[in-house]
Amino acid sequence: MPFPSWPTNDAICFGGDYNPEQWPREVWDEDVVLMREAGVNLVSVGIFSWALIEVAEGVFDFSWLDDLLDLLHHNGIAVDLGTPTASPPAWFFSAYPHARVVAKDGTVLGFGSRGMASPSSPEYRAAAVRVASELARRYAQHPAVVMWHVHNEYGAPVGEDYSETAVAAFRVWLQERHGSLEALNAAWGTAFWGQWYTQWDHIGAPHATPTVANPAQKLDFARFTDHQLRACFVAERDAIRAHAEQPITTNFMANECPGTDLFAWAREVDIVSNDHYLTAADERNHVGLALAADLTRSVAGGAPWILLEHSTSAVNWQARNVAKRPGEMGRNSLSHVARGADGIMFFQWRASRSGAEKFHSAMLPHAGTSSRVWREVVQLGQDLAALAPMRESRVEADVAILWDAESFWAQDLEWRPSVDAQHKERVRAYYERLWRDGLTVDFAQPSQDLSRYRLVVAPASYLLRAQDAAHLTRYVEAGGTLVVSYFSAVVDEHDAVHPGGFLSPLRDALGVTVEEFLPLRAGQSTQVSWHPDGEPAALLTADVWQDDLVVHDAQVVGTYVDGPAAGRPAVTRHTHGAGSGWYVSTRLDIDGLAPVMAAAYTDAGITPRGLPLDVEVVTRHGADVDFVVAINHTAEDVKVDLGDGHELLRDAPVAGAMSISAGSVAVLRTARHHGGDGRP
Amino acid sequence: MPFPSWPTNDAICFGGDYNPEQWPREVWDEDVVLMREAGVNLVSVGIFSWALIEVAEGVFDFSWLDDLLDLLHHNGIAVDLGTPTASPPAWFFSAYPHARVVAKDGTVLGFGSRGMASPSSPEYRAAAVRVASELARRYAQHPAVVMWHVHNEYGAPVGEDYSETAVAAFRVWLQERHGSLEALNAAWGTAFWGQWYTQWDHIGAPHATPTVANPAQKLDFARFTDHQLRACFVAERDAIRAHAEQPITTNFMANECPGTDLFAWAREVDIVSNDHYLTAADERNHVGLALAADLTRSVAGGAPWILLEHSTSAVNWQARNVAKRPGEMGRNSLSHVARGADGIMFFQWRASRSGAEKFHSAMLPHAGTSSRVWREVVQLGQDLAALAPMRESRVEADVAILWDAESFWAQDLEWRPSVDAQHKERVRAYYERLWRDGLTVDFAQPSQDLSRYRLVVAPASYLLRAQDAAHLTRYVEAGGTLVVSYFSAVVDEHDAVHPGGFLSPLRDALGVTVEEFLPLRAGQSTQVSWHPDGEPAALLTADVWQDDLVVHDAQVVGTYVDGPAAGRPAVTRHTHGAGSGWYVSTRLDIDGLAPVMAAAYTDAGITPRGLPLDVEVVTRHGADVDFVVAINHTAEDVKVDLGDGHELLRDAPVAGAMSISAGSVAVLRTARHHGGDGRP
Amino acid sequence: MPFPSWPTNDAICFGGDYNPEQWPREVWDEDVVLMREAGVNLVSVGIFSWALIEVAEGVFDFSWLDDLLDLLHHNGIAVDLGTPTASPPAWFFSAYPHARVVAKDGTVLGFGSRGMASPSSPEYRAAAVRVASELARRYAQHPAVVMWHVHNEYGAPVGEDYSETAVAAFRVWLQERHGSLEALNAAWGTAFWGQWYTQWDHIGAPHATPTVANPAQKLDFARFTDHQLRACFVAERDAIRAHAEQPITTNFMANECPGTDLFAWAREVDIVSNDHYLTAADERNHVGLALAADLTRSVAGGAPWILLEHSTSAVNWQARNVAKRPGEMGRNSLSHVARGADGIMFFQWRASRSGAEKFHSAMLPHAGTSSRVWREVVQLGQDLAALAPMRESRVEADVAILWDAESFWAQDLEWRPSVDAQHKERVRAYYERLWRDGLTVDFAQPSQDLSRYRLVVAPASYLLRAQDAAHLTRYVEAGGTLVVSYFSAVVDEHDAVHPGGFLSPLRDALGVTVEEFLPLRAGQSTQVSWHPDGEPAALLTADVWQDDLVVHDAQVVGTYVDGPAAGRPAVTRHTHGAGSGWYVSTRLDIDGLAPVMAAAYTDAGITPRGLPLDVEVVTRHGADVDFVVAINHTAEDVKVDLGDGHELLRDAPVAGAMSISAGSVAVLRTARHHGGDGRP
Repeated sequence: MPFPSWPTNDAICFGGDYNPEQWPREVWDEDVVLMREAGVNLVSVGIFSWALIEVAEGVFDFSWLDDLLDLLHHNGIAVDLGTPTASPPAWFFSAYPHARVVAKDGTVLGFGSRGMASPSSPEYRAAAVRVASELARRYAQHPAVVMWHVHNEYGAPVGEDYSETAVAAFRVWLQERHGSLEALNAAWGTAFWGQWYTQWDHIGAPHATPTVANPAQKLDFARFTDHQLRACFVAERDAIRAHAEQPITTNFMANECPGTDLFAWAREVDIVSNDHYLTAADERNHVGLALAADLTRSVAGGAPWILLEHSTSAVNWQARNVAKRPGEMGRNSLSHVARGADGIMFFQWRASRSGAEKFHSAMLPHAGTSSRVWREVVQLGQDLAALAPMRESRVEADVAILWDAESFWAQDLEWRPSVDAQHKERVRAYYERLWRDGLTVDFAQPSQDLSRYRLVVAPASYLLRAQDAAHLTRYVEAGGTLVVSYFSAVVDEHDAVHPGGFLSPLRDALGVTVEEFLPLRAGQSTQVSWHPDGEPAALLTADVWQDDLVVHDAQVVGTYVDGPAAGRPAVTRHTHGAGSGWYVSTRLDIDGLAPVMAAAYTDAGITPRGLPLDVEVVTRHGADVDFVVAINHTAEDVKVDLGDGHELLRDAPVAGAMSISAGSVAVLRTARHHGGDGRP
Repeated sequence: MPFPSWPTNDAICFGGDYNPEQWPREVWDEDVVLMREAGVNLVSVGIFSWALIEVAEGVFDFSWLDDLLDLLHHNGIAVDLGTPTASPPAWFFSAYPHARVVAKDGTVLGFGSRGMASPSSPEYRAAAVRVASELARRYAQHPAVVMWHVHNEYGAPVGEDYSETAVAAFRVWLQERHGSLEALNAAWGTAFWGQWYTQWDHIGAPHATPTVANPAQKLDFARFTDHQLRACFVAERDAIRAHAEQPITTNFMANECPGTDLFAWAREVDIVSNDHYLTAADERNHVGLALAADLTRSVAGGAPWILLEHSTSAVNWQARNVAKRPGEMGRNSLSHVARGADGIMFFQWRASRSGAEKFHSAMLPHAGTSSRVWREVVQLGQDLAALAPMRESRVEADVAILWDAESFWAQDLEWRPSVDAQHKERVRAYYERLWRDGLTVDFAQPSQDLSRYRLVVAPASYLLRAQDAAHLTRYVEAGGTLVVSYFSAVVDEHDAVHPGGFLSPLRDALGVTVEEFLPLRAGQSTQVSWHPDGEPAALLTADVWQDDLVVHDAQVVGTYVDGPAAGRPAVTRHTHGAGSGWYVSTRLDIDGLAPVMAAAYTDAGITPRGLPLDVEVVTRHGADVDFVVAINHTAEDVKVDLGDGHELLRDAPVAGAMSISAGSVAVLRTARHHGGDGRP
Repeated sequence: MPFPSWPTNDAICFGGDYNPEQWPREVWDEDVVLMREAGVNLVSVGIFSWALIEVAEGVFDFSWLDDLLDLLHHNGIAVDLGTPTASPPAWFFSAYPHARVVAKDGTVLGFGSRGMASPSSPEYRAAAVRVASELARRYAQHPAVVMWHVHNEYGAPVGEDYSETAVAAFRVWLQERHGSLEALNAAWGTAFWGQWYTQWDHIGAPHATPTVANPAQKLDFARFTDHQLRACFVAERDAIRAHAEQPITTNFMANECPGTDLFAWAREVDIVSNDHYLTAADERNHVGLALAADLTRSVAGGAPWILLEHSTSAVNWQARNVAKRPGEMGRNSLSHVARGADGIMFFQWRASRSGAEKFHSAMLPHAGTSSRVWREVVQLGQDLAALAPMRESRVEADVAILWDAESFWAQDLEWRPSVDAQHKERVRAYYERLWRDGLTVDFAQPSQDLSRYRLVVAPASYLLRAQDAAHLTRYVEAGGTLVVSYFSAVVDEHDAVHPGGFLSPLRDALGVTVEEFLPLRAGQSTQVSWHPDGEPAALLTADVWQDDLVVHDAQVVGTYVDGPAAGRPAVTRHTHGAGSGWYVSTRLDIDGLAPVMAAAYTDAGITPRGLPLDVEVVTRHGADVDFVVAINHTAEDVKVDLGDGHELLRDAPVAGAMSISAGSVAVLRTARHHGGDGRP
C-alpha cells in the first residue's frame, strides 16, 4: 500500500515514545520546549493509554489527547499515533476473564503488568478494532499525525496462549491448513506413540504433557501463534485504513522475539520499524546491534526503516543493566543509520518516576538536563540533521545469511541431538565472522531470489523444505557460493527427517551427506586440521558437534584431529555447476571460521576491505552519491582510507586517509559506486 | 501493657519446645527428671497441638494437657503455653477449603505439612480466636503458666496469600490506605502501562502476569501481608488477654523472615522473643547470629528478650546440616545473652522419632544422655544459673544501622539496575565490619530518634521517605556522622523515584547526588584509590556497582581506578553543620570497608577497642555493675584486658589481662561505666 | 506360572520394536527382507497402536495387524505382541478427562505426547483390560505370537498421580494397609506438626504444601503408586492369560525408574525383561550398564531374561546424545548376555521420520543399509547365533549388594542431613569398586536368604527394618562378611528413627553406633588414615559426610585426619560370631574404597582375579560347560588367561593366554566349575 510521504519528509525521524499522561499538565509545556532544543521531530503517543481513552466499555474521553496533539503540532513536532491495544484496561479483563492468556501449564496470566490479551479472543479482537477505529476516526485528519503505530511489540512479553479460546481457534486454523484429519495425521506422524486423531475436537494445544509433545504439533502451534498475532495487527490496520491515509507500522523486535516471522509481518506494514536493545552481558553487543539492523533492513526488502525504540543508556529488565559509555549511544544510532534506518527513536522521552520501567534510561533522565545523557541526545539531534541527505539511500550486500523463522522454531523444540546446537549461536557466529571481515550482510529467506548475492551462508537451516534445497542447489549451479553449517537440511516442513537421511536434499550442492550425528560431551573440544590445498595449513578449534560424513564427490579441506570422528572429514568443498558448496560439520569458533570463510570469499570473488578489528564501515548508496559510515568502536584513534569526499558530521572535506578518533563516527559523502563492500 | 514479672523471675529462662504428645505417657516422667537434671525452668507447650485439643469443630479435649501442666508444675518447671494456630487440623481444611493459602501462580497449598491458613480467612480468624480463648479460659489461672506463646513464626513457611479471600481483603485494606481510587492510581503510577483503575473490584493481587507486575502494587501487597498476619496475632492476643494476666509473646524470626516488619510487631507483644538458626553454609555464621541478636534487642527497644528457639546442634532443613562443634552451642547461647537475651530456649526438648524434623538436633538427642550434646546442655544450664545476676542489665550502642522492612521489600522487587545489589548483603557487610572492629550495634528505623548514636550507617536505604531523609540530614547537622552506601535514597514510599534524581533527598547531608547508576558486569571487579588526605593511601577492592556521581560540595576521598567511572569519585565525605556525611558508591569488600569506616569512626569520636579477630566482647550494663561477655571464637587461647572484676562462669576474681582459652567464654562482672564499646 | 518354552526356543532373541504403522505398506516388505538379512528372530509389535486398533470406543480394526502378523510369520519372524495401554487414544481422554494424570502442583497432564492415564482410574483400567482381552482373544492362537508384552515401561514418563481419582484410591489403600486411623496416625507420627487425622476422607495425597509434607505419608504414597501400577499390570496379564498360553512380560527400567519395586514386579511376570540406555554424559557408562544387567538378573532370581530395548547408537532424550563408537553396541550387547540376558532387542527396527523420537538411533538408521550401524547390526545377529549354546546357562556371584526400593524412596524425601548423601551414588560407587576388582555381583533384598554370598555390601540401607537388621546380624554370625556404608539403619518402615539411635539395629553386627551425623560443607574434602594393622598404611580421600561414632567393641581401622571428626574413628571392623562387620562412616572415593574392600574380601575369602582396568570378565555356567565372556573396553590389545577352551565368536580353540584386541569381545567355552569369580 503506497503512502504519501516519509513521516518526517526529508528529515531523519528523531524522537521517542512520549507518555505525558504520567505527568502533570505543566510538565508538558516544559517537554515541548526541551524537545525543540533537542531537535525532536517525531514522538510516539498513546501506546499504553487505552484505560485513559476508553474509560469504560464504549465510553471514550479524548480531551487530554486532543490537547496533547494540538500542543505538539503547535510546536512543530509530528506524531506517530499508537493504538493502545497492547495493554487492555482493567475493566476489559474484569468483563472478559476468558480473554486472559493461559500459560502452558494452565496458569492464568492476569492483569496488573503490561497485559496482552489472548490474540484468539473474539472479545479482545472486537475491542481492539473499536478503539483503533475511534482513534482513526478522530485523528485521521489531525495535522500532527504522520504515522500510525499499531499495538506494541507483538509477541512480547507473551505470545503463546493455551486458553480454551486459543484451542478452539487452533482447531479452525488446523482445518484450514491441513484440510483433512488424514492429512494432519500424516503431517504430524501421529501413528507414532498412538497419537492418531479421529475427530478435530480431540486436538488440543501442546500443553503440559507427561513427556514431550508431538514436535509437528508444536511447530504448527508456533505457526498458529504467529498467525493469530498477525491477524490482530491486520484487523487494527484495516480499521485505521478505513479512515486514515498515513502510513501504518508496528514495532518489531528483530532477533529478540523469535515467535514472529518478520518476513511475513513486513509484507503487512507500510513502513518497517524495529525496537532494539543491547544485551548488556555481551561485551561485543555492537555486533548484535548490527545483526538486528541488517535483519530489519532485510525484512523491509531494503527500504528505509525506522528504529522506533532503543535506549539512551541502560535498560532495566536485564540482570545487570550496564549503562552506555560516553559516545556509545551515538555510535549505536549511526550504526542503525548506516544499515538503513531513516529514523532514530527512543523509549522514552522522559524517565518515569513510577512503575516497572523507572530505571530505564530516557532522553530526559531523572538527573535532568544537566547530564551527560541529555547533552548526547542534543548532539545526536544535530548529527541526524546533518545526515538528512542520506534519506532514501540504500545498502547493498554481496552476502546473504539464510533466516527462516520456521526452521528456528523447529530447532528450538525438545529432544534434539544436543542442547548445545543452537541456531541463534551459529547465526551470530557466522554474522560476526562476516562483520569482522567488513562485509555487509543481508538476511534472506531460503525460498527467495538469491541471484544478487555472491555468497550465501546457511548457519542454521535445520528445517529446509525440499523445494528450497533445490532452489539453493540451482543457486550454486548458476555460480553462487554456498556455505552450510552442521545440523542443516535435516527435516522438512513437518519436522520429518528427509528421506535419504540428513543433508540429502543438499547432496548435489555439497557433495556430502551425513550418516550420523556425533554430538560431543559438555566441555569437550576438538581440533580440525585445515588443508585447503592438501597440505596442513592450520589447526582450527571447535566443539559441540561432529558429523560422520559420507563424502560422495566433495573435496575434503578439513579433517578431525580428535574426537569421535578423528581422522575423518570435517570441512568439505564441492564444485557444482558454476559454483561451489561448502559444508562445515562442526562448531568452529570465530577464529576457526576465518580461514574457511576466507576460502569461500575467494570462491565468491569477494575481497574484504581489511579494516582494523572493531572499525565498522558500511556504505549507503544514494542516487548520485555514496555515504560511507565509519564507526570506531575501539579505544584508539584509527586512520582509514575510504576515498575522497566530504565528512558530514564535521562538515569538512576529506582527501585520502581519514583519522577517526577513539569511539567516534565519520560519515563520508563520496562518489557513487555500486555493490557490496567485498568488491574493490 | 505491663505484666507482673519475668516468666522465670530472677532466673534466665532455660528450656525448649516440649511436644510430649509424640511420646507415650511414661516418657513424660523421664522427661521431667531429665529437665531437672539439666536445670530447665521453662518449656513451650502446645504449639502444634490443635488437632489434639479441638478434636472436632468446637469439641475440646484438654485432659492430656491438664495432666501435662500439672506434671510440669509439680516438678517446678514453668510453662510458656502456645496457641496451636500455626497448624490448623485436617478437619478445619476439609470444612473450609477456601481458607487454604494460594500461591502466586494459583497453586493451592494443601494440608499435610505445617499449614498456615489464609491470614485473611474469616473462618480461620474465628477458629483461631476460639481455640486461643478456650485455652486462656482454662489455663489462665494454672500456676504453671507464666507466659503465652501465640502461633509460631508468623510469616513462615508462607506469608503471602493470593486466594480469592485474600484479594477481597486486599481491596478493603487498599481503600483504607489510599482513601480514593484517584489516590491509589497516583501512588501506583497506573498511568504507565495502562493500569489505571476505575473500580475497586478490578484490583487484584500481584499474581502471575505476562511480565512484571506494578512495583507499587507489590509493595502494598507486602504491607498488606504483614498487616494481615499481625491482625491475626492481635486477635489471638486480645482473646487471651480477656482471661489472662501473663505476658504474651510470639516468636519472631529476626533477619530470616523478611515478610514481617519487626519494629511494628514488637509494639504488639509484651515480651519480644526470637528464633535463630545458624546458616550452616556460612563459616562465619557467629556474625550472622550476633546481627540477629542485636536486631531482636533493637526491635525490643533495648528491653530483655528471649531466644525462644535455637538448636543444640544441626538443623534439618538446610542443604547440608552441619552439626555444631564442641562448645559452639555454649558460645552461641552466651552471644545471645551478651546482646540482651534473658532467656535461652531450644527447639526442641527431645528429638522426634517421626515426621519432617526428626533430623533436627534437640536437648535430648536420639543418642540419649550419653552424648556430647546432652553434656553440653547440662553445662549450659549451670552456666545460665551462674549468670542470673545479669537479668535486666542492658546493652548500649554508639552505632546504629538503619533497618527498614519496607525498603527491603521494595528493593527485592524485580527489574532493579542489578541483581547483585542486595540489601541483605550490604547490611551484613557493614555489620561485619563493625563486628570485627568490636563495636556493638543497634538497628534503628530511619524515622526514629537517632541522637543517642555517634554513628549511623545506612547500608541499604533504597526506599527513603523525604521526611526521613530530612530527619537524617538534621541528625548530621546536629553533629552526627552518617555513612550511606550505594543505591540509597532512590525512591519514596510509593517506589517512585525522588524528584531531583537519585540520592537528592540526602544532597544536603552528603554533598553529592547520583547522575546515573553504573552497574558492573558479572564477575567484574574494580579498584578504588583511597586518599582521605589527598595522597593515595590504599587501593580498595570493590565490585557490582559504580555511580556516576555529581559532587556538589563534598570532599572526594576515594577515586575509581578502573571501570566505567574510572578517574571519577567513588567515596566522598561532606561536612554538614556539626557533623559529617559519607557516601560509598560501590560494593567495597570487608577489607575495603576498613579504612573508610575507620575514618568515619574518627569523625564520630569512636575508638575501637582493638581486639584480635573473632574475639567477641560485648558489655551489658546493670544498675551498679557491668557484665563484659568475652567469647573466643578462635582455635587459639587469647589474652585480653577487660578490666578488673569477677569472672562468673568460673567464679574467680580477675585482675588485669585475662586468658580465654580456645573456643571458650568468660563473663566478667566489673565496675559500671556508661556508653558503647567505642568510648575508651 | 510355567510357560511352554523360551520365545525363540534354543536361540537368543534378537530383534527390536517394530512399528510399521508409521510406514507405507510397501516398506513392510522391505523390512522383512532386511530382518532376515540381519538374523532377526523376534520383534515387538503394537506397543503404541491403541488408536489404530480401537478406532473408537469399543470399535476394533485388526485388519492391518492381521496382515502384519501373517507377513512376519511367513518370514519366520516371531512376535512379542504388545498391549498398547501405555498410550491411550485421543478419544479416550476426550471421553474421560478425569483419567488424566495430575502433577503434584495441580497441573493436569494432557494428551499429545506419550500419555499414561491415571493408574487409579476405573475407566482406564476397564479400557486397558478390554483392549488386552480383545488382542488376546484374536491372536492367542496366531503362530507368530510367542510372547506378550504388556504396556511399556510402567512408571515412566510419569508414575505419581495426584488427581482426585488417585486420592480416593489412596484412601482405600491406606485403610487396607493400616487398618485403623489410630494405626495410621502412629505410623505417620501425626502428633507432630498437628497432623492428626480423625476421618479417612481428610487424608489427601502429599500435594503442594506450605513446607515439606509428612515423610511417612510420602513414603506410603510411593508404595501406593507402585502398587497401583502393578495392579494395572496384573489386570492386563490376567485378561491375556484367560485366552493365551504364551509367556507374558512387561519391560522394566532397572535402575532408571526408581518408582517401581522390581523385586515385587518380577514375581508377577513370566519372563523378566528390561530396557537399558546408556547415560551419555558418563564416560564409564559401561559400568552402569553392567549394574543394570546384574540388577535385572537378580530380580529375575537368576533366570534368563531379555534385554527388550537398548539402542544401536545415540538416544534422543538426553542433553547431549553421544553416538556409540564402532564396536560399542557389540560390547554393550555381550555384556548383557554375559550377565544373564538370553535376548538382545532394540528400540527400534527402523528410525522414525516423524515424532518425538526421530533422532533415536535404530537398527535401520536414516542413512539406510550403507551405514556402520547397519553393518554392526548384521554382525551382532551372527554373533548371537554363535552364542546360542549359552542359552539357559547361569551367572553365580559371591557378592551381593543390598537393594531395597523402599529404602531408596525414603532416602529421596526432603530434609535429610545432607543433599549430597545420595543412595544412587553410593550403590554405583561400591558396585564400580567391585566391578573394577573383577567381581560379579548380585543385588539382594535385605530380607532374603543371603547365605549363598560370601560378602554382602549395604551401600545405602537408610531404611532398614529391625527384623532385616536382625537377619543381617545372623548372616554375620553365621560367617558372612558385611560392609555397611554411612547413613544406614537410620529409620524403620515408617521412616521413624530407630529407638536407640542411628545404626543401633546393627550394633551387634558392627560393634558401633552413631552418636551424631557430621555432614560436610559443599566442596569440603577429608582424609582418612587407613591402619588396618595398627600402623598407618595409606591416606584415603573422602567427602560429604563424617559420623561421630561410638565404638562399642569394634576395631578402628581408619581414623579421620581432619574435618569435624578429626582424630576419631572413620572405618571400623568387628568380629561377630563367625563373621565380620565393617562400617565405613564417610564417602570414600573409588580409590579410597580399594584397600577397605580388599580387606573385606580377605575376610570373606575372596581373591579377585586381577585383571587390567576396564577388561570385563564374567562367567555363565551351563550344565556341562562354562562360558567366559571377556570384553576389552580399552583402546589397547590385552592378553588374559581365562583357561583353555574354544572361542565361540571366532570359532577357534584357545590354549592358555588369549589376546583380545582393543574394543573387542571373546567368549570362551571352557570346562565347568562352580561359584563366583572370587574363588581361584
